[in-house]
Parts: sequence; structure tokens; C-alpha cells
Amino acid sequence: GGRIRIQSADKKFDAAIRARIHMDYGFFNAGKNFTTDATDGFQMRRAFLGVAGKVYTDWAYEFTANFADNRGGGSQIQAANIAYTGFKDWTIIGGVLQPKFTLDDSTSSNDIAFMERAPVGNIVVGIGGSDSRTGVGIINKGESHILAAYVTGNATNTSGTIDDQVNILGRAAYAFWQSNEGAAGIGVSGVYQTSPQATARPVAAGTATTSISFGDRPGLRVGGNRTSLTSTGAINQIDGAYAYGADLGVNFKSFWAAAEYYNFGAKYDDYTATGAAQTLADPEFSGYYVSAGYILTGERRNYTPGEWAGVKPAWPVGQNGFGAWEVATRFSQVDLIDRAGGIAGTGTGKETNWTLGVNWYVNPAIRFMLNHVMSETKRPNGTDVELDITAVRMQFQF
Amino acid sequence: GGRIRIQSADKKFDAAIRARIHMDYGFFNAGKNFTTDATDGFQMRRAFLGVAGKVYTDWAYEFTANFADNRGGGSQIQAANIAYTGFKDWTIIGGVLQPKFTLDDSTSSNDIAFMERAPVGNIVVGIGGSDSRTGVGIINKGESHILAAYVTGNATNTSGTIDDQVNILGRAAYAFWQSNEGAAGIGVSGVYQTSPQATARPVAAGTATTSISFGDRPGLRVGGNRTSLTSTGAINQIDGAYAYGADLGVNFKSFWAAAEYYNFGAKYDDYTATGAAQTLADPEFSGYYVSAGYILTGERRNYTPGEWAGVKPAWPVGQNGFGAWEVATRFSQVDLIDRAGGIAGTGTGKETNWTLGVNWYVNPAIRFMLNHVMSETKRPNGTDVELDITAVRMQFQF
Amino acid sequence: GGRIRIQSADKKFDAAIRARIHMDYGFFNAGKNFTTDATDGFQMRRAFLGVAGKVYTDWAYEFTANFADNRGGGSQIQAANIAYTGFKDWTIIGGVLQPKFTLDDSTSSNDIAFMERAPVGNIVVGIGGSDSRTGVGIINKGESHILAAYVTGNATNTSGTIDDQVNILGRAAYAFWQSNEGAAGIGVSGVYQTSPQATARPVAAGTATTSISFGDRPGLRVGGNRTSLTSTGAINQIDGAYAYGADLGVNFKSFWAAAEYYNFGAKYDDYTATGAAQTLADPEFSGYYVSAGYILTGERRNYTPGEWAGVKPAWPVGQNGFGAWEVATRFSQVDLIDRAGGIAGTGTGKETNWTLGVNWYVNPAIRFMLNHVMSETKRPNGTDVELDITAVRMQFQF
Repeated sequence: GGRIRIQSADKKFDAAIRARIHMDYGFFNAGKNFTTDATDGFQMRRAFLGVAGKVYTDWAYEFTANFADNRGGGSQIQAANIAYTGFKDWTIIGGVLQPKFTLDDSTSSNDIAFMERAPVGNIVVGIGGSDSRTGVGIINKGESHILAAYVTGNATNTSGTIDDQVNILGRAAYAFWQSNEGAAGIGVSGVYQTSPQATARPVAAGTATTSISFGDRPGLRVGGNRTSLTSTGAINQIDGAYAYGADLGVNFKSFWAAAEYYNFGAKYDDYTATGAAQTLADPEFSGYYVSAGYILTGERRNYTPGEWAGVKPAWPVGQNGFGAWEVATRFSQVDLIDRAGGIAGTGTGKETNWTLGVNWYVNPAIRFMLNHVMSETKRPNGTDVELDITAVRMQFQF
Repeated sequence: GGRIRIQSADKKFDAAIRARIHMDYGFFNAGKNFTTDATDGFQMRRAFLGVAGKVYTDWAYEFTANFADNRGGGSQIQAANIAYTGFKDWTIIGGVLQPKFTLDDSTSSNDIAFMERAPVGNIVVGIGGSDSRTGVGIINKGESHILAAYVTGNATNTSGTIDDQVNILGRAAYAFWQSNEGAAGIGVSGVYQTSPQATARPVAAGTATTSISFGDRPGLRVGGNRTSLTSTGAINQIDGAYAYGADLGVNFKSFWAAAEYYNFGAKYDDYTATGAAQTLADPEFSGYYVSAGYILTGERRNYTPGEWAGVKPAWPVGQNGFGAWEVATRFSQVDLIDRAGGIAGTGTGKETNWTLGVNWYVNPAIRFMLNHVMSETKRPNGTDVELDITAVRMQFQF
Repeated sequence: GGRIRIQSADKKFDAAIRARIHMDYGFFNAGKNFTTDATDGFQMRRAFLGVAGKVYTDWAYEFTANFADNRGGGSQIQAANIAYTGFKDWTIIGGVLQPKFTLDDSTSSNDIAFMERAPVGNIVVGIGGSDSRTGVGIINKGESHILAAYVTGNATNTSGTIDDQVNILGRAAYAFWQSNEGAAGIGVSGVYQTSPQATARPVAAGTATTSISFGDRPGLRVGGNRTSLTSTGAINQIDGAYAYGADLGVNFKSFWAAAEYYNFGAKYDDYTATGAAQTLADPEFSGYYVSAGYILTGERRNYTPGEWAGVKPAWPVGQNGFGAWEVATRFSQVDLIDRAGGIAGTGTGKETNWTLGVNWYVNPAIRFMLNHVMSETKRPNGTDVELDITAVRMQFQF
């Protein structure tokens, strides 16, 4: 796909320059009870540049910066890790990495079927996974399974006032059907945050002010001001957070479908910030999505154990073809209300998003995407907020 | 010129690493009525690193970061675009790009004759062109002409509170004389900003607080604190801005000359920020420059339709020569006073700059420049501000 | 070592992609009188990516960005320089560079024996050297000597309110013993800051508010909040600063030892910020370190004139070996108290650090380091502050 790749004659060394540009343009169609002044415009979603390869046969490396921060005005380390691959089927990795965690997040952002992953997935990977994450991990991958376990800390670009967080997470996936016509598999993922990031100094003896919040944008990110539509807000004085759930993926020829479900929540400390005993129940939430798609031009989106391979156009534009065309849809819901846990403010709610998508794979290096999201949020006070968003993506990678 | 370039055997793929360092050092000689404590010192003017090439024959790409922000302390996406070049003479481009707009700005910063482009050009390209600009465009280029049209939005590294701006711009240039001894041509450029960037929430029903300001530094940028000498200040409550003008370029053997003239201004809303009817006339300004140069060592600065090619030293230093030497001068003026439009504050004025320059092209990858600017500004209140600036540039590119 | 390097057939051009990742994880063990809430966690210490090479035989270049700022959340230009190497043994260099200054700082951070250089060295190179420094220099290097002189200005990523600083610095080193079994040499380094960076506007006629402070972290940097344990604090109203000292290095087979000693201080202006005559003596301080190490697996840390070469493992892991293993220790002291100069506040003191280190050189591209620092600071008021720090580093470079 146009990658600048160099290999030594003895194949012990290998290096490639890696680039990835995901640039979006979109606009909001304000709906019922939506009075926020949403920002239409472009969004530099990803702009990765770096190197990846191997040295001395068994050591892989990856070093990539992301220049997309602040709409192209800042940089962050996306990946900076080394991995030992000298034991067959095993990988031991450390540094700044993206853990294999959930079906959606295990799939490269170059290959996902929609412009954004489903909100529930973004929420749970945010606890201790996602990209730009510091940590160490061990992965075992076979023809029909993957096992991965990690201990992670903070993401890059965070300034800690006391100590970094500590997260333990893992994923197992198994393909129970693999044939020439397709494949299907299940997976489970779980994360526990044992040491939440402290946001301020202790306010009472032995009590650190720790917090977490759960929320995500409504299925698309456009413009220069991308706040969440629905969020729990800060859940304070916690001593842990967690998520667990399962995923299912199947493809049959050019058709594919996927689903994921997660529970997630936080554990309160015994005492609140004022030193009074905590009387609220531990807050817990849940979410899921179901998605399906079809490649009109006959290519496939292959399920491989625990992740999706991308669509490779058989006839690129200008090479006797018009590229590959895919249509896809997704129904997604997160319920961020827990009255027993004290999470029922005006900013939270039960958010439902319908997404319609069309993807045009021009060639293996270039893809254009069109997504339309219809979002509806039921607030705890009964208000119903509706919102439509339309966006396009220009994608280039090698 | 030392470029790291890789091409596939079938010539369908092509990739090069691109680098550009422009590093300046300069100082101010305070003149009459100039009491600002100007900052002498170095300026990291440009520090580009990235990749450019093509994939699948017809698709060109460019991805470059600029590390020069804050004197080398931050990064910004300089270019991140893909272009389809499959139709002969036509280019369709989208992403973060630099539109072909004005004669000076259509010429690479590696090849311009002075350390900075003339102020009037920087002002008009700032409306909707310049580098790091998001947008889409279409270009038709022949042996003796270029036509280019774009729709652009914000530059990268901007945070929009409401919606991104929308600009329509275009350029046409025609070489009316092309021979073995030189060439000459004319061009026109125009831009209209239909949706100015909003800077705050609406202050009255249907009225967004939109603004623009016109101004540029006095021909050189040095030190860590580079404010404009002359600026209109923020022109508020506008619903559009524009610029249009013409350019002329000619080279005869080693001699060359250029000139550009532009009108530019803004359209007021019907109502001011307080809701009162706007009584001021729409503000309009103008500026121009005339420049000429001579390459002492016999090389040429060739006029190609709508832009300048750079000087290529025939005998690089260490290769039986002393490189190429060029002398150049420029007279530049911008009048940023419009009393009928309410723009006559103490910070604005009619600024005139004389620039003298010497360029040493060591080899095709390295150039040193010396510029001296004599600047004089007549303020609306009659005060006359004078200032001299001297600076050198070390330039490296491949 | 896995470097992506391309050379033209005529050897006139040469280019390589350069990468360097130094990622640390560590924690503090609070000791006597240490009540600061020290931040445990990861630290992205260095993350360099760039290009280096030569063009037209005699011109070398280096252009590298460091993505480690703010724990991987920002970038800064690490190096952006060109050098003329056409005169035998001489190099003339300009741009953003790291001067050859002190024995420790002349050694690449890839090759230093401890995770951090000794505090006294970091303090004196901070006056006008260190990396990311703008300047010009001339270096003469022979088989048994090196001479280097520089004029430098600000580091990148600084915003000057008046004028950039000007520093003059130089280094000379001579290897008085060179044999098949080892080498030994001495060096001297000195810097004078003639124009300190001004931090605010003049507060009295002819008096700029200039300042400097001396201090460094206690031998290791971990977590997201890395303040100095001991610092003079800002020394204001100065018109110069300086440092000078000597170094000694020796290696005999797999054993090596080093020592450096420096005096450093500042020159007060005649008047204080209030306009009163300065009555304090010019403050002066000193510091030193002694270090030694041994490579258990038989490799050597070679002394070359004025700097250390790194340890190259003879049997990389997976290539019939277990890499190279080195043990090292360092005793370091800085005395940042000068009562006559008015520097005896609660934040300063006489700091002593013992460092124990183990280095594992997996292969020429990968190194792991373990350092333990025992730090003790005697405050001017007699308080004794103790602190232990333990950290590990994952290092990758090509």
C-alpha cells in the first residue's frame, strides 16, 4: 500500500515509515431540546507519523506521534513500545501501547466500519486501555484464539499530582467457526482500576480525592469543541473502577455482524470528601451495540480471532475498478443513570444512537467514509434530547 | 538535493522524506517614536518534517508537521492532503494544504527572494489561504497558465466556538512571454470569506460576534515576541471579508522583477454588538509591493506561470565553485487606515518598508540570507514611527 | 543497530532515520523530613524522531524532534543544525545543537552509565549548553584531543520578553594514555553567560530584571511532577553567570572511573530591583561527582578524548548470549548555599546522592537500566532531608 519499508538482506532487521491521516468534516442538526451551540467544521481526528519494524530478529518496535491534538495544533506520543517475539505465539510488550481490549478497540482505526467506535466501547477502554497508554502486556495468539493481559498506568499527556493509576485488564477471544465462507467468534474483556488517578491532595487522613467519569460523544466528533452529550460527571472519592463484558463477531461472505455488551462502574471509598461515611451504593452502568454491514462489491470484512481485518478493495480506482463499497448500520445504547449511586444529574441520561454508514475504499491506502447519526437521550428528569450529526472522513494510511 | 526518496520498480509508488529548516537571528534598531521593547534573538521560522509521494500512480499525498511553533517548542500540521492527478493537467486536492493564491504565496518558502513575503500578501492570504489551511481545491495547469479554485475552512490549530469559517478563493495566471532568455506573466487572485469565524456566542438575536483583523509584521520576524507594528485591530460584527488584486512577474536572464497590488476589506453586519444599526461604511484597505533582483553568478530565478522557481546554484561550494549569489530589493506599502469604516486607532497606520537582501545559495540544499528592512509608519494621528531590522537566515531543505 | 540508512552510490549523500525512546518508571521512598507528596509513576524521558546525514560530501545535518514533553504530550526541537566538515579535523556547526561541554554531557544519553547525569553537570550545562540550544560552534578533534568553542543563545521553547541570552562556552580534553588495554584523559570546561535572559521589563533606569537559578532533581526523574529537591531559587538582578571545572576519565579493560568538579555562580548588578546598591557578595557554589563501573560480561566502556563511547554487547540476546551486564556506582554532591551571597533559604542546601546502577544491554538497540538513589540534603537551617528513589528505564535507539 505504498509503505516505505526497508529490510536487511538477512531479514534480521526491518523498518517501515508509518503514516495515518483521518480528517473529518461534519455538522450538527439540532433536534428536540438541543440548545447547545454545537460546532460545525473540520476535525483532524488522527495524524500519525512514525516508524515500526524489528531489530535482531526477535525484537519488534513501534514509535509513532499523533499530530492531531487541538485540531492539528499539538502532538502526543501515540505508540512507543518494544516487544519480544522470540517465543512462538507469544508477545511480551512494554511501553506506550494500545492493549487488545474489546472487539472494536482491538480493530485498527484504519479498519473500523464506522467513523467512531461505539460509545460503550470508548467508555470501557477509557478505564485502562485505549491508545497512548503506558503499560506492559503479554499476548498469546493462535489460529483460532487470542489471550491478552496487561498492567497499565496513565495515558501519555497526563500530569499526575500524586501517583499514576494502576489498571489490570485482559481479553480472551475464540473463533468457534472458521471456513472458506466466513468465520464467527466470541470474546470477553475485563478491566479493574486498582489505583484511580488522584486529582488533588488528601482532604482527610488516609483519603485521597480520586475520581472517574463515564461518557462519550454521541457517535461522531466534529468541529473544534467536542463535548460529550451525556456524561455521569465526576464520580468522586472512589477507590476503584471496573468494566467487563462480552462480544460476538461473524462474517459470511460479504455480510458481517457484531455485538458487544459491557457493565462498568466504580467503587466508592468508605468516606466522602467531607469525611462523612459514604451512604450511596456503588454506581454501576451498562451499554451495548449491535452492528451489521455488507460489501456491495464482493470483498469481505473478515473476522479473525478477537478483531476485524479491514476491507481490501479487489479493483482499486484506476486499476480496472471503482474500489470497494460497503454499507453498514449500528444501534448503540449506554445508560449512564444510577439513582442508587447518586448519578442522576441533568448532564447524564440514557443515550441511544442509530448510525448509518457508507464506506468507499478507493485503494488499499485511501478510504472515504460518510456517517449519519441519529441520537436520542432521555435525561433522568424525563427530558428527551434529540440530535442528528452528519460527517465525512478522508482517510489515508500506509 | 540529498532527499531520501524511494520508488517502486513499476513506478506506481513513490515516497520521499521531506525536511525544511529555516532558522533566523536578528535584531531591531529602534528609530523615531519607536518605544516598544523589541525582542532581539533567534526565531525558528520553519521546521518541517514529513513524507510526500504517490500511491497507485494517480494519488499524490503530502504529510508534514511544523515543529517551529513557540520557537521550536510546539508542533502544528503543516500539510496533510491527498490529491487525484489522474486527469491530464488537472489536480483535485483535499485536506490540510496551501492554496495557490497570490504570486508570492504560490512560490515555495524555500525559493522566495526575501526572508519574508511582502506584508500585503501575508494579509490577503491570511483571509482564507496560507499554509496549514483545511480545504478542497481544483487546479488546472498548462505550459503557460494556471487556474486554481478552492473552498477552505479554518487553519489547523484553531478552536472554534461556533462554526468554522468558509472561504472561496481562486487564482489565474498566464505567461504572455516565454523564451530561452526569460519569461513574463500576469495573474489575478481573489478571496471571499462568506462565514467569518465566530469568536463568542450571539449577543443579540440572530447576531454572532464575528471579527477579523488585518496586519502583519514589518517585513521580518525576530526574537520571541513578534507583534505586528501596524494592525487594524479587531473589526467586529462582520458578515464577510474579501481581497482581490493582480500580480506581474518577469525575468530576463539573471534579472527579475515582480509586483502585486491588492484591495481587501470586510463587510459589516447590519447591527453592531449592542443591537444598534451599524452606521459605519464597510472598511476597505489596500497595499502593494514592487521588487527586483539580480543573480551575480549567472543563474536565473525563472518565472513559471503564476509562481517563481528557485535559484539553483550551478557551481555548489566545494564543487568547483562558491555557490550562487543574489541581490534583491523590495518596496512595500500597506494602508490600514479607513476613517469612514471606523479604523483609525493608534495601532494602525500607513506602513512603508524598504528591504535589501543578499542570498547565498551554497548548494541546492543550503541557503543563507541577509535582510535589512527600513520601516516607516504614519499613524492616523500624524505620528511617524521608524524602525530598522536586520536579520540572517540559515536554510536547509530536501 | 537496525538504523534506516540510505547512501548515494557516489557517497556524496547519506541519510538515516534516527529514533530514541527512553521511558522510565519509578517511585519515591519518603525518608526523614521529606513531606512532599512525591509523584510515583512513569516518565517519558526522551522520545526523539528525526533524520541525520550529509549532503554534497562536506555538509552534515541533523533534524530531530523530541516528543517527550509533558509525559509524551508535546514536542520540542531537539536538534536542527548544519555543519561544514570540509576542513580536516574541523567542524563548523550552527543551529539548534548540543555543545560538547563537560565529560558527562559530551557523552550521548544513549551511552551514559546512569539514568541521569550527575546534578552538578546538569546545573553547569544549563547555563549555556545542554540540548535544544541555539548557537554556533567550532570543533577540532584529533586522535587524542578535542577542542570546542561555542557562542549560544536561548534554548528552543523559550519566549523572551526582551533579548535572548548570550553565552560563550568551551571545552578542551586530552587523552594522556591510550593503549590496547584502555585509555585515560583529562578535560576542562567553562561557560560565561554575558547577557542573562531578562524576565521582565526594567524596574529602574538602566536596570533589567534578569535572573538565574541553580538546582537539579535528586539524580532521578519519575512521575508527572518533577520538582527539584534542592535549588537556590531565583537569583535576581544579575548581569552574568559562569561555571568552570575539570574532568577525569579512565578505563582499564572492563573497569572504568570518572570524576568532575565545577565552580559556578552569578555576578550581581550594581543595583537591586528597588534601585538600592547591591550589598551582597556575588554568590558562588560548587559540586562534584565520582563514579566507577565494571562490565561483568567483558565488554568495555571506552574513554575517547573528552567523552565516553557506549557499551556494545558482544553476544546479544538470542545471538548466542545474554547481552552485556554492567554495574556502576556514583557519589555526587552539590553545595547550593552561599550565605554571603544571600542564598540560604529553606529550599536550598547541600545535597549528597549515592547512586547504584545495573545496566543490561540486550543488543546494540535495546538497553534496560535499574537505578537506586539515596539522597540526603542538609538545609541551611540544619534540617536534614532524606529520600530514596528507585527507577527502571526501557531504552531503544537506532
